[in-house]
Amino acid sequence: MKQVVIGVDIGGTFTKFGIVDRDGNVLIEGSIPTDTFDNVTDYQKNLFDEIEKAILPIKNEIEIKGAGFGAPNGNYYKGTIEFAPNLKWKGVIHFAELFKKYINVPIVLSNDANAAAIGEGLYGGAKGLRDYIVITLGTGLGSGLVANGEMIYGFDGFAGELGHVMVEPNGRRCGCGKLGCLETYCSATGIKRTAFKLMCDMSEDSELRQYNFYELTSEKIFDAAKRKDPIAIEAFEYTGFILGAKLADAVAHTSPEAIFLFGGLAKAGEILFKPTIKSFEEHLLPIYRNKIKILPSGLQDKNIAVMGASALIWKELGK
Amino acid sequence: MKQVVIGVDIGGTFTKFGIVDRDGNVLIEGSIPTDTFDNVTDYQKNLFDEIEKAILPIKNEIEIKGAGFGAPNGNYYKGTIEFAPNLKWKGVIHFAELFKKYINVPIVLSNDANAAAIGEGLYGGAKGLRDYIVITLGTGLGSGLVANGEMIYGFDGFAGELGHVMVEPNGRRCGCGKLGCLETYCSATGIKRTAFKLMCDMSEDSELRQYNFYELTSEKIFDAAKRKDPIAIEAFEYTGFILGAKLADAVAHTSPEAIFLFGGLAKAGEILFKPTIKSFEEHLLPIYRNKIKILPSGLQDKNIAVMGASALIWKELGK
Repeated sequence: MKQVVIGVDIGGTFTKFGIVDRDGNVLIEGSIPTDTFDNVTDYQKNLFDEIEKAILPIKNEIEIKGAGFGAPNGNYYKGTIEFAPNLKWKGVIHFAELFKKYINVPIVLSNDANAAAIGEGLYGGAKGLRDYIVITLGTGLGSGLVANGEMIYGFDGFAGELGHVMVEPNGRRCGCGKLGCLETYCSATGIKRTAFKLMCDMSEDSELRQYNFYELTSEKIFDAAKRKDPIAIEAFEYTGFILGAKLADAVAHTSPEAIFLFGGLAKAGEILFKPTIKSFEEHLLPIYRNKIKILPSGLQDKNIAVMGASALIWKELGK
Repeated sequence: MKQVVIGVDIGGTFTKFGIVDRDGNVLIEGSIPTDTFDNVTDYQKNLFDEIEKAILPIKNEIEIKGAGFGAPNGNYYKGTIEFAPNLKWKGVIHFAELFKKYINVPIVLSNDANAAAIGEGLYGGAKGLRDYIVITLGTGLGSGLVANGEMIYGFDGFAGELGHVMVEPNGRRCGCGKLGCLETYCSATGIKRTAFKLMCDMSEDSELRQYNFYELTSEKIFDAAKRKDPIAIEAFEYTGFILGAKLADAVAHTSPEAIFLFGGLAKAGEILFKPTIKSFEEHLLPIYRNKIKILPSGLQDKNIAVMGASALIWKELGK
């Protein structure tokens, strides 16, 4: 019998799940919609049915040791999803407790960026590191901080919200209600906002000027930057400048050995990494300079969402 | 035989030492100058001689189990003091290793703010807390971050330098070489700089206007604020506003249960705490609001420097 866990990544639109072995191999995977279920009871029933169906072919070869869930506003200590803005289920959902009805194994739930950070440590570039940070650059900016070999969950289970540190006191309006949060600058959405500001500030011609706000995407900005579009290049320079400065501040908190960037925007490679690293080194306190690496995630092209969720529970079982 | 440790706080001008028992009682204390010794060899010899003299009366009643040192730029992993700007001994000093010549007991060395944080946890207001931050508001701003019950030293031993997170991209010149560091705003020196800016910006009369830059101190600003001096009050309001905003950012990193403020400036009490807490709550991500305490250090009027240094080694011996 092969020992496996269920890894589930709950996104606002889709939920991905997988059966994952101890080495991070995803043996089976599948997905269900998230937003078609108005209540969590129907959602969990559907999710479990789909998992059961998916594992049928290997059911007699595996032993399910636990389940890990990555979810927005997931609380590690309580197994709850609390006031997640992108989910239909409002208030505090006792997700882990409710799911025990379907399968009585150890269940761990945390937010998706924490899951990604643990995945990076178990299967990716952070293997063997005791102090590191993972930044996920998607629609927003998520983060997971590891120090002394342990995930920093904080006293309330919600630590690691670097997307909401302040860049500018009266800066861009964020979905959280505050102004000037990092994720309004450094994320797929953030770079789009930056491009629109630059189309105002700069006078150069640019292929980005043909798109309206709904049409423009970070991928289009990346493609334009590769073609040396001046506004697209400047958008990445500015994004990297802000990101580097705030990662330097993060170093002043936990002094990690490496910082891993993951997600769509991180795939831009050098176009993002070069200005980020330049600004990072400039903003670091001298004692930290030239020794902390900023790297692409080692799991960039893999199913990190599911692997991360599975890593949550493998880490717990390995304790 | 009473089990005790030696606690030593190495400051730029003075070094304080004490013999401390497991409960944090300072049985004997003393001090020597720091800056009269051009090399660390002479300094250590003098320090040890003075400790020996001081403990003579109780020599037969105590057993020295270890020694803890709090020092600027102290490195926990290596026991070194590295490139400390305020000390005469330049470069990397293998302090702990060198001190073994005098007394062969376990020795731990870290920076003074980390020592204060461990002291707060062992003897002060953070007793029993697994996640907290201590901020020392002296000439500069020091910090010690504890998560999962462990001090965050970072991969290089230098974590917790919140005095050097960025407040403004092209802000005040800091001693570290950067611009806009937090300690140029929030410290005894920082509030003095703020008072001078306010004497420029504001037109109100103020008793602070009679002092030149060398004469003005944070104590004078505090005294004037108590007398409702408008510039002094505004100086505390501004200091609290900046401090609160940056502590909110720190929460987004490690989500502590409480943040303790220690040092001269923190003694201002409500005049500093009120605007700090107001700004803190405003700048927090909603999920963190109204649950994280900002408190005065539980060791405010005690010899925290020596107690903190002793806590470093007691914590180590207790592991």
